[in-house]
Amino acid sequence: MIYCLGPRGSYSEIAAKVFSKILGENNIVCCNSIYDVFQYLEGSKGNTYGVVPSENSIEGSVSLTQDLLLEFYPKIRIYGELDININHCLVGYNREKIKRVYSHPQALAQCRKYIKKYGWEVVPVSSTAKAVKLVRSMGSEEVGAIASKEAARLYNLKILEEGIQDYKNNTTRFILIGKKGLKLNLKGEGMKKSTVILKLIEDRPGALYEILKVFNDFKVNLTRIESRPSKEELGNYIFYIDYITPKNEGDLLKELERHVAYIKHLGCYRVFSKS
Amino acid sequence: MIYCLGPRGSYSEIAAKVFSKILGENNIVCCNSIYDVFQYLEGSKGNTYGVVPSENSIEGSVSLTQDLLLEFYPKIRIYGELDININHCLVGYNREKIKRVYSHPQALAQCRKYIKKYGWEVVPVSSTAKAVKLVRSMGSEEVGAIASKEAARLYNLKILEEGIQDYKNNTTRFILIGKKGLKLNLKGEGMKKSTVILKLIEDRPGALYEILKVFNDFKVNLTRIESRPSKEELGNYIFYIDYITPKNEGDLLKELERHVAYIKHLGCYRVFSKS
Repeated sequence: MIYCLGPRGSYSEIAAKVFSKILGENNIVCCNSIYDVFQYLEGSKGNTYGVVPSENSIEGSVSLTQDLLLEFYPKIRIYGELDININHCLVGYNREKIKRVYSHPQALAQCRKYIKKYGWEVVPVSSTAKAVKLVRSMGSEEVGAIASKEAARLYNLKILEEGIQDYKNNTTRFILIGKKGLKLNLKGEGMKKSTVILKLIEDRPGALYEILKVFNDFKVNLTRIESRPSKEELGNYIFYIDYITPKNEGDLLKELERHVAYIKHLGCYRVFSKS
Repeated sequence: MIYCLGPRGSYSEIAAKVFSKILGENNIVCCNSIYDVFQYLEGSKGNTYGVVPSENSIEGSVSLTQDLLLEFYPKIRIYGELDININHCLVGYNREKIKRVYSHPQALAQCRKYIKKYGWEVVPVSSTAKAVKLVRSMGSEEVGAIASKEAARLYNLKILEEGIQDYKNNTTRFILIGKKGLKLNLKGEGMKKSTVILKLIEDRPGALYEILKVFNDFKVNLTRIESRPSKEELGNYIFYIDYITPKNEGDLLKELERHVAYIKHLGCYRVFSKS
């Protein structure tokens, strides 16, 4: 079974469908929130997976997913990642009559310039697919939604314009998560990446520099470094780091441990592509 | 004049009132969006300022503010920062009758566990103060808002519970911004900080390490390092760095320039406190 962030027609469901082919798991269940995906997984048995958004090329990381990866550690791990192109569409009845547009706050932010051009009022809702459903149920020419082509088709609404995001290179990264200890049955060899969360020993000028020196000494290529609040006080951070997994990862982790307050290894996983 | 993110009763207005005392500027104008604050400032003359949220100790940075600082560079600069304690209140008529709560998505996220306990449906709106206004106009016991004490008082609604955020240490940092070249008339000397945005020359293992080595060599204390998408492609980042301004900042900037694709100095500014 694969739990994903719903409702049906969401970009998460599109990603879950790709993973479903790779894993040979046909049962996709759409959940109400990212939190629910984590919680259902925690109580699951056997080969059960989750698919949630982790990062977008325009808006940056999805904070809730990052926070929950820490909260549910060590029970939940990362098993894969997949990038999906985001192609926002204006969905509704008549572009010239629209006064209000509904969508998820990230989608509204990604189409900020387009919306500004028409001077529409924006109404944030919990997902892009829900926005389409809402506009469908209102049945008024004065409202529109911003969502995927798939969501428009699902709820039988017209696509008024495609590719309306401000930046054309708009990609969202989804991660495949599951309980610790799952065995994926995958053919061939692909690039492997790892994710760690670490906290520096204390706030001193060179603390982060020391950590990066270790990665540099091991000639390991970082693909993401992100600071998140430690939630203890403002100016106190933890770091999320993704890197191409080296053969001697055990040694790298041992050396890193000597320089940090804690380090949590969220997984070493395959990077998948859509086709 | 001081433009701030509205509506009246918002945490931004609370911050703007503190800055208004410091600057001797009594005219505070509440704007509809963070974008409007930047745009009004761009077209302003004389001693005109803006106050916008930049970072929260729980939720992390305010992406839109970070993006606009880059978009409006070099016209708009940072002139000060101020931390405000966030004390979310449940506002409405009767806690036991509530079925839906309205608030800004960040406030809803900050009270996630509290909301979960009661099983309320959440409805995101554009600001905490707007949520109070909405609940007031609905006049139903089934709805509640999450907002500041000040907003509850302003719209004459009951505070049902105080301090409902999941983490008690909840602080938002606000920045004072204005057109390049403003002269602030301030007494005394306080700690000074600087903010730069920089882009690494290319994605290579040690690129960020090189930059941090320069800061380390200059014995400069970083107070924030944050990666943001460059909006070019996933995995391509720019970095926002705050540091305690050293006396030889000119030399530091010159040395940094040798290691980056670009560096934008957003300002060297005073750190203010509420009292």
